[in-house]
Amino acid sequence: MNADILIKNGIVLTMNDHGAVVDKGAVAVKDSLIAWIGPDDQTGEIQAAKVLDAEGGIIMPGLINAHTHASMTCFRGLADDLPLMTWLNDHIFPAEAKLTEDMVYKGALLACAEMILSGTTSFCDMYLFEGAVAKAAHDSGMRAVVGEVLYDFPSPNYGPLENGFAYTRDLLEEYKGHDRVRIAVEPHSPYLCAPDLLKKAREIAEEWNAPLVIHASESENEVAQIKEKYGCTPMEHLAKIGFLCPRLMADHCVVLTDNDISLLADNKVKAVHNPESNMKLASGIAPVPALLEAGVCVSLGTDGCASNNNLDMMAEMNAAAKIHKAAALDPTVMDAKTVLTMATKNGASALGMDGQCGVMEQGKLADIIILDVNRPHLVPMYNPMSHVVYSARGGDVRHSIIHGKLVMEDRRVLTIDIKQAMAHVRELAKTIA
Amino acid sequence: MNADILIKNGIVLTMNDHGAVVDKGAVAVKDSLIAWIGPDDQTGEIQAAKVLDAEGGIIMPGLINAHTHASMTCFRGLADDLPLMTWLNDHIFPAEAKLTEDMVYKGALLACAEMILSGTTSFCDMYLFEGAVAKAAHDSGMRAVVGEVLYDFPSPNYGPLENGFAYTRDLLEEYKGHDRVRIAVEPHSPYLCAPDLLKKAREIAEEWNAPLVIHASESENEVAQIKEKYGCTPMEHLAKIGFLCPRLMADHCVVLTDNDISLLADNKVKAVHNPESNMKLASGIAPVPALLEAGVCVSLGTDGCASNNNLDMMAEMNAAAKIHKAAALDPTVMDAKTVLTMATKNGASALGMDGQCGVMEQGKLADIIILDVNRPHLVPMYNPMSHVVYSARGGDVRHSIIHGKLVMEDRRVLTIDIKQAMAHVRELAKTIA
Ligand SMILES: [Zn+2]
Ligand SMILES: [Zn+2]
Repeated sequence: MNADILIKNGIVLTMNDHGAVVDKGAVAVKDSLIAWIGPDDQTGEIQAAKVLDAEGGIIMPGLINAHTHASMTCFRGLADDLPLMTWLNDHIFPAEAKLTEDMVYKGALLACAEMILSGTTSFCDMYLFEGAVAKAAHDSGMRAVVGEVLYDFPSPNYGPLENGFAYTRDLLEEYKGHDRVRIAVEPHSPYLCAPDLLKKAREIAEEWNAPLVIHASESENEVAQIKEKYGCTPMEHLAKIGFLCPRLMADHCVVLTDNDISLLADNKVKAVHNPESNMKLASGIAPVPALLEAGVCVSLGTDGCASNNNLDMMAEMNAAAKIHKAAALDPTVMDAKTVLTMATKNGASALGMDGQCGVMEQGKLADIIILDVNRPHLVPMYNPMSHVVYSARGGDVRHSIIHGKLVMEDRRVLTIDIKQAMAHVRELAKTIA
Repeated sequence: MNADILIKNGIVLTMNDHGAVVDKGAVAVKDSLIAWIGPDDQTGEIQAAKVLDAEGGIIMPGLINAHTHASMTCFRGLADDLPLMTWLNDHIFPAEAKLTEDMVYKGALLACAEMILSGTTSFCDMYLFEGAVAKAAHDSGMRAVVGEVLYDFPSPNYGPLENGFAYTRDLLEEYKGHDRVRIAVEPHSPYLCAPDLLKKAREIAEEWNAPLVIHASESENEVAQIKEKYGCTPMEHLAKIGFLCPRLMADHCVVLTDNDISLLADNKVKAVHNPESNMKLASGIAPVPALLEAGVCVSLGTDGCASNNNLDMMAEMNAAAKIHKAAALDPTVMDAKTVLTMATKNGASALGMDGQCGVMEQGKLADIIILDVNRPHLVPMYNPMSHVVYSARGGDVRHSIIHGKLVMEDRRVLTIDIKQAMAHVRELAKTIA
């Protein structure tokens, strides 16, 4: 067999339905796909242009960051430890009012570098000037679902709402058929979007068979606002207007009633959990074990760098695995396999790519990362899944392949000029601070 | 001025009482001490044998891991996501019953490598065969407070309890006057140690002017046990028998009443917070904001690798800063400066070295780390303290100096043969698994 890339001498975590692990395994990649997975001693017949030695490390699906605002790298650490309204009104909103397409591109490109370096191969983004984020994803070699944020007041990008729909349609047209970048329809939240906006967004998403993304039930304060306005919870409100559907990613889902959880399950909504952001902003602890128990597909996201303050999905998995044990006073909830599934397979489902990536199997898209386990904090290794979730760090990712292309080799990102990306954002930061 | 090491071109976080930060700073080290701190452009007169360019990075006190069981690196990931009693009785206790001095040394040396590589310069340890941990600390160049664990049943190391006291006294004698390694008296916990043991331990600590260490109030289950046995909380019990005192480090302090908090404050006990272990074992969330409010000195520790599963104090700071915001639904609690103080200055107080290290000032011990900020996930930098707590990872530590000696340069540990340390523990793991 001819292959483009052969990864040898590793432990393959397939994350498939059987939880198969190939202990001394190898993986061959051809074009954009996984061409073969098998024992390391059966690679003799494979001719590959590029051979990567995993050196006993972990070969696994790339991580999927199911909710972020990539360009907010520009605001990383600008304001922390503040009351939510002070943070938003005195720091984040004024900074965002001065955003330009150039800033969004540069922030997003740095974010792509950070994500590749910490094992993320796909992300879902919501922000302003989202065309620039799409371009950054295209340029960096990452897989992404991106969409312009829509709300009822004028946007620093497109102005009045009707232009927002037009901007979204233009992006949908422009990226039609792109092999890695897909456009979503993304109303901000039930508190910033009237029912008319939400209905229109849903229609466009159906028309284009596009993912739909919204922030929902993030905090007690939001729930109180919606209750006052509509007499029900945010999820009940979204259900009433017909917004809940399988193509919807609902970000945060922190403050939920039992009925909300049933609505999410019944409508096959994809819930996205952002534990570090929810902790840092003091939103609370999402009822993730209950969501999973109800059969909801829960994936994992970092949210933006203003509320995290990094895009490291390894750290996010660690937080997700631990916080719910403390909240439930039960060490068996959110085990390593569950959390790893959220960050891979469930992420793919959330992004509308169920069964296409997030799993290592022949014929799936080749979005693959290789972790170096020859480091003191990863020795010894009894259980590779536990290692990834409880012991590893973003910096342990050594190689990354996206859509069959090597985008990072031995921690060198091949698709982005890292020094320039850092310099550009440092320059921007001077004007922001 | 002559110096041994001159660190140039960095941001100095002094962590002193004024919170002083030197923006374009430099630090000179001579013998074991910080000889000078000042502006980078005033180093012209300083002759140094070794010059380190921080390249704009962060120069700060080394992190102090105030509670760990270093040798448990051997059991990293051996068993996770299990009910507490299954984990202890079926996995950890059987593994520990087979411990040898050789295993403890090798596990501790790997732990020292991991800690140095992630920015820790001092640690406080409790385990079996603690002489081997003392030797690992000595050999690795780390600063440490170590003590043999004491309890009422026979120990795999020393056998009956009276030998445990003798073993402790021998260590106290052997390390008398050591410039980095200090011996503590360490009864395990109020539930495994009768009042006689605790009183005797306290006496020895007083006699030798040694730190005293205990696990206390870690879980609801422990509190229930002590209440049944003694009719009061663990802290009340310890207060009654005269065990609470300023030389005492009380590890965990998760389940506390208001009266317990007053007892800790009144007796100037040093509380050690272990958020990641408390989450992973589902012990709960310690009332750290209330402890700090009451004036208790709270420091930070990773606990052992069986319940974390790493010794990364950067990750521990991140968890400590975030978990309490979610628990209190208040984003202003546990701000970056508070958490950083816990991991440095308060750690020094806990280890009985108040004002000797954990702070960057002329005349203090030179325990210093330098963080590389020229990495995508650390760009831009508005606020270095926020960066350390919310954005940085253990792998961002570039150089480390302990007691005036360079122990890591450009991520190369100079005091430990890392490959050999990893190979040794991998060999041990085969016999453990
Ligand atoms: Zn968001
Ligand atoms: Zn402990």
